[in-house]
Amino acid sequence: MDVTRALAHNLVRSRYEDIPQAVRHEAARALLNWLGCAIGSSRHETVDRALAAVAPFSGPPQAAVLGRGERLDILHAALINGISSHVLDFDDTHARAIHPSAPVLPALIALAEWRKTSGAQLVHAFALGVEAEERIGLSVFPEHYETGWHITGTAGVFGSAAAAGKLLGLDPRQMAWALGIAATQSAGLQEMFGSMCKSLHPGRAAQNGLTAALLASRNFTSSEQAIEAPRGFARVTSSRFDPGVITEGWGERYELMSNMYKPYACGLVVHAAIDGCIQLRNRHAIAPESVDRIELRVSPLVPRLTGKREPASGLEGKFSVYHAAAAALVHGAAGEAQFSDACVRDPRISALRERVTALPDAAIGRTEAHVTIALEDGRTLSVHVAHALGTLERPMSDADLEAKFAGLTAAVLAPGQIDEIIGLCRNLTALDDVAVLARTAVPRARGARHDLTT
Amino acid sequence: MDVTRALAHNLVRSRYEDIPQAVRHEAARALLNWLGCAIGSSRHETVDRALAAVAPFSGPPQAAVLGRGERLDILHAALINGISSHVLDFDDTHARAIHPSAPVLPALIALAEWRKTSGAQLVHAFALGVEAEERIGLSVFPEHYETGWHITGTAGVFGSAAAAGKLLGLDPRQMAWALGIAATQSAGLQEMFGSMCKSLHPGRAAQNGLTAALLASRNFTSSEQAIEAPRGFARVTSSRFDPGVITEGWGERYELMSNMYKPYACGLVVHAAIDGCIQLRNRHAIAPESVDRIELRVSPLVPRLTGKREPASGLEGKFSVYHAAAAALVHGAAGEAQFSDACVRDPRISALRERVTALPDAAIGRTEAHVTIALEDGRTLSVHVAHALGTLERPMSDADLEAKFAGLTAAVLAPGQIDEIIGLCRNLTALDDVAVLARTAVPRARGARHDLTT
Repeated sequence: MDVTRALAHNLVRSRYEDIPQAVRHEAARALLNWLGCAIGSSRHETVDRALAAVAPFSGPPQAAVLGRGERLDILHAALINGISSHVLDFDDTHARAIHPSAPVLPALIALAEWRKTSGAQLVHAFALGVEAEERIGLSVFPEHYETGWHITGTAGVFGSAAAAGKLLGLDPRQMAWALGIAATQSAGLQEMFGSMCKSLHPGRAAQNGLTAALLASRNFTSSEQAIEAPRGFARVTSSRFDPGVITEGWGERYELMSNMYKPYACGLVVHAAIDGCIQLRNRHAIAPESVDRIELRVSPLVPRLTGKREPASGLEGKFSVYHAAAAALVHGAAGEAQFSDACVRDPRISALRERVTALPDAAIGRTEAHVTIALEDGRTLSVHVAHALGTLERPMSDADLEAKFAGLTAAVLAPGQIDEIIGLCRNLTALDDVAVLARTAVPRARGARHDLTT
Repeated sequence: MDVTRALAHNLVRSRYEDIPQAVRHEAARALLNWLGCAIGSSRHETVDRALAAVAPFSGPPQAAVLGRGERLDILHAALINGISSHVLDFDDTHARAIHPSAPVLPALIALAEWRKTSGAQLVHAFALGVEAEERIGLSVFPEHYETGWHITGTAGVFGSAAAAGKLLGLDPRQMAWALGIAATQSAGLQEMFGSMCKSLHPGRAAQNGLTAALLASRNFTSSEQAIEAPRGFARVTSSRFDPGVITEGWGERYELMSNMYKPYACGLVVHAAIDGCIQLRNRHAIAPESVDRIELRVSPLVPRLTGKREPASGLEGKFSVYHAAAAALVHGAAGEAQFSDACVRDPRISALRERVTALPDAAIGRTEAHVTIALEDGRTLSVHVAHALGTLERPMSDADLEAKFAGLTAAVLAPGQIDEIIGLCRNLTALDDVAVLARTAVPRARGARHDLTT
């Protein structure tokens, strides 16, 4: 089955009018969520170090580093914004496979600053990029992942190539080449989890996919059967390959509709416990001092993946369900601030952390939890979280996503800019030129900010 | 076994004084051969298309595109020179595994234009880069290759990272990170053979390895066990891994001493037949018109890999032992000119091609051939080529390599430049600043050339 050519053909002949309204809306939600992640971590040391390393080699100032003042050529902008997308592990997650936005949107937003792109074109290219990367990823999933590949990098590069190729107007043969050039750059090892290279993966995927599309637009050739051939992507990197997944039901369903957003700045598996603590805190106005103990019944994955009893840093706090529950109860939130070094060391929180227990129960799903809080006055409060906030069963609302965006960007952008970006995303498909997004997503110069306040 | 850290340690503590004279000499031979390949194919359409695609995004004019006038940032220069290194498949070959120079030297020559580098430093870094890429490649060879990976790309990136990291003066931890950042970018599928992407592999390896070293120099972290960990490079990409190969006998032997150079511009497997034809032609002053038939007894690989009876293009001529033998007999050579479209269509050569037979014989090795030429006057001339020119058993001499360089570059550089580069390579380890190589390896401006001739 000639799936590379078939996919290329589907990508090229797709029209914006084919994309359902619900998918367009989901694209705008994903864009806002992604912008928040990239802007919010733009001053992270991972981003600082990558930028310091490559800035001396950047080309013309074609595209913004989101959340910062620097402008780079579009390839380097895609790299750096791809890294910042994923640094906090707060970006979106497809229900079954990869982080869809981080490898694709950095390429598109950079390209859109270089070649005028409307909101509708952006939405269209993004939806197709997600379709390509998820379908290719799912065609080899989970065996490919179990081999040790970080699928957000290895499949993400196809998404970036397909999306950028769509914006560049590639013909079917060029699109097949773009997919092939992507395939032969596909990379990213799970061994990098816990190091800065985890974020490098979507950054390189965005940059390499964009490069693939640019090369193909100049008729740089590759195999036209790069995905399915005996020595192509699928068979070289996975013990199983189901080519039908790549083409079946094309245009009838959209992978973007399986997209999930994280309300909490840590691994998905802890979310239900956090969710329950916040629900009980808010419903019963619980003061931390009044708590005798917090008892969690959770999936066995929870203590296995996040069982750190005494986290020593903010990062370790993300791998401690005890810290997450305590911080959620004290602050009523679990954003980056709750996973800072300061919060992990806060005596009020560490005292409460010691009163948290997590009982594994094989009957409980990974986004489910039973949370019981025993108060010193003898009362016992309980809640069953069947599906954590942010799952497909209980998605974050548009208002939730806008609040998350505002929280992530508050330390970087002026309030007026935050509102402006939210407004632009609400109105995304009507925008004539989406470069305004990137222009608004950088801190205003001091002078300009001063002007606003005088 | 902690081989990534051990390799990093070995690379960092190595001193130039440790490198034996024979290895230094071989490094200079490899450099000259590589420069010839890169300069000679600098106007190939593969290079033209890649350059057109990325030039709008290049940074400051830090490094030369060899054989051309353009100057790019060092990362893009490494990419483009890496592509041109391999376009003709005329670059060097390690006796067992990968093309060693194409992924490494483009990074070093570009870096050397950005940061002053002596000939001794270049030789040292290059020898270490080859050591790293060959040892890592051999630790998973041949299973990794048989999986479908193009090992010149997948292992080459380690060579580039190690060599560039040596020039950048990385400490042991940074060197381990550089190897890790290389590992997680390792890519390249054999499915691309026959397309322009085959040359993209060493280009991207050079560029990505250089990027890895630059990132590591800024303390961008990766796993420090990227090669050997359960979800690291070796186990994810190969069914077999022998970590001892990476460290055993370090400093006692050098992989560069197993380097081979091609006298003929086609696959190694045809070389013995070409060699025999040229030997008989020169020894007996054979005129093509006097030949009744050419009978080759060859390895069974020869007709299998190069069995095209009626090649239609220069590229197809490389896969026709019949054409190669006929052209060698007519021209006494088998360079790029003998694998041009014009040569393949030359009636004198196509007439002779029909008189060539190639009998497979399982007792004959892949660099061996028996060549018999029957003349119309009834005489029969024979030669047994036990080892083709260019093998380790019968290496090309320094004079052979200089003649190959002159042949490859004659259409690009002025005679004085060709002689100058040959002289610089002869004197390589005494050079104070090797940037002179790159400066000499570009065509002189018309004005300057005119000045020379008036």
